[in-house]
Amino acid sequence: MMAPTARSVETRERILAVAAEEFADRGYAGTSIGGIAERAGVGKGLVQYHFKAKVDIAVTLVQSTFAQAPFANVVTVDPPPRGVAAIVASIRAVSRAFRDNVRVRAAVRLVREYDIIPVVFPTPYVGWMAVMAQCLRDATDAGDIPPGLDFETEGWHLVATFTGVQETSQRLTQREDLPERIEEMLQRQLRLLGVIDPQRFL
Amino acid sequence: MMAPTARSVETRERILAVAAEEFADRGYAGTSIGGIAERAGVGKGLVQYHFKAKVDIAVTLVQSTFAQAPFANVVTVDPPPRGVAAIVASIRAVSRAFRDNVRVRAAVRLVREYDIIPVVFPTPYVGWMAVMAQCLRDATDAGDIPPGLDFETEGWHLVATFTGVQETSQRLTQREDLPERIEEMLQRQLRLLGVIDPQRFL
Repeated sequence: MMAPTARSVETRERILAVAAEEFADRGYAGTSIGGIAERAGVGKGLVQYHFKAKVDIAVTLVQSTFAQAPFANVVTVDPPPRGVAAIVASIRAVSRAFRDNVRVRAAVRLVREYDIIPVVFPTPYVGWMAVMAQCLRDATDAGDIPPGLDFETEGWHLVATFTGVQETSQRLTQREDLPERIEEMLQRQLRLLGVIDPQRFL
Repeated sequence: MMAPTARSVETRERILAVAAEEFADRGYAGTSIGGIAERAGVGKGLVQYHFKAKVDIAVTLVQSTFAQAPFANVVTVDPPPRGVAAIVASIRAVSRAFRDNVRVRAAVRLVREYDIIPVVFPTPYVGWMAVMAQCLRDATDAGDIPPGLDFETEGWHLVATFTGVQETSQRLTQREDLPERIEEMLQRQLRLLGVIDPQRFL
């Protein structure tokens, strides 16, 4: 294959953007190379020049969204927050990404449909759980949470609770009430973790 | 059609039992009338005598599991518990059913795959949320929870949190750690709800 030209990179990105819309709207089974080509306004052959099969597009989308720094990459404030502030910022940012970023929506839907897709996706959740556990450790060191928490267990439950809130809001309101449900969840979780003066962080 | 004979009822039940295994193992897309017939050791025509199409089997399974009394029907103690005891009993019973009852597993998987199945399933969650809200009201009346809770909001979050715990445990350990995660969740939720002397209920 020749070195990619600017135009070829642009076409590949355009195919990925359109494929994300298709996967997010129709799921894996409902998406086809032909449908992607049509929506992108290019020939099927051009899509297949960039991606041999539908599964390759799915893998590229999931990996570019999740693999490198699971969910941590959505917090773009500099310097990055730490401790409780980082927990709040990452939960809010991930929930915004679920609503506003079609690539994230596509990746999440594809990962949810893993059992019908012939490929092994990166395991979801575990990266973010580890980040959460570290934030809780930092928060305890900073004196924002009293000592005594089991950081791994609390990190597990933070991510599981977010997952349930996200899934329930998606199912019942197509994520329309997600921002409000996330704030309710944050209030409850900070209270549960024993965060001292939680309103500082909300 | 003739009145169903005992034998015909038995065959129909056998087909449903085998279909539940297939849907739970392979999902909607991976299941076929032919596969069900083979696993049940009957001809394809006999399956189609009872169910015109795969989607009819899916609907029958989901409706018989969910529709009548969503999740409340899994608590079989008599007299049924009330208030906090009912919340704990129903969460434990539903989590046991997710592990041990293949019809529940099939129904849950089918409802999760709703976007690839050409039929409208009963909306999940809302029935159980209403039951939870009523239990919280009863618990407050009984003096087990201090007054002031927003019952509907707390019912929403109880069900959403259970959903996340279930989904996360399923995804990371095929529900092997579900009983332990559910007990951790119950500890946290009773504390969060302000239940007085929560160990009475655990």
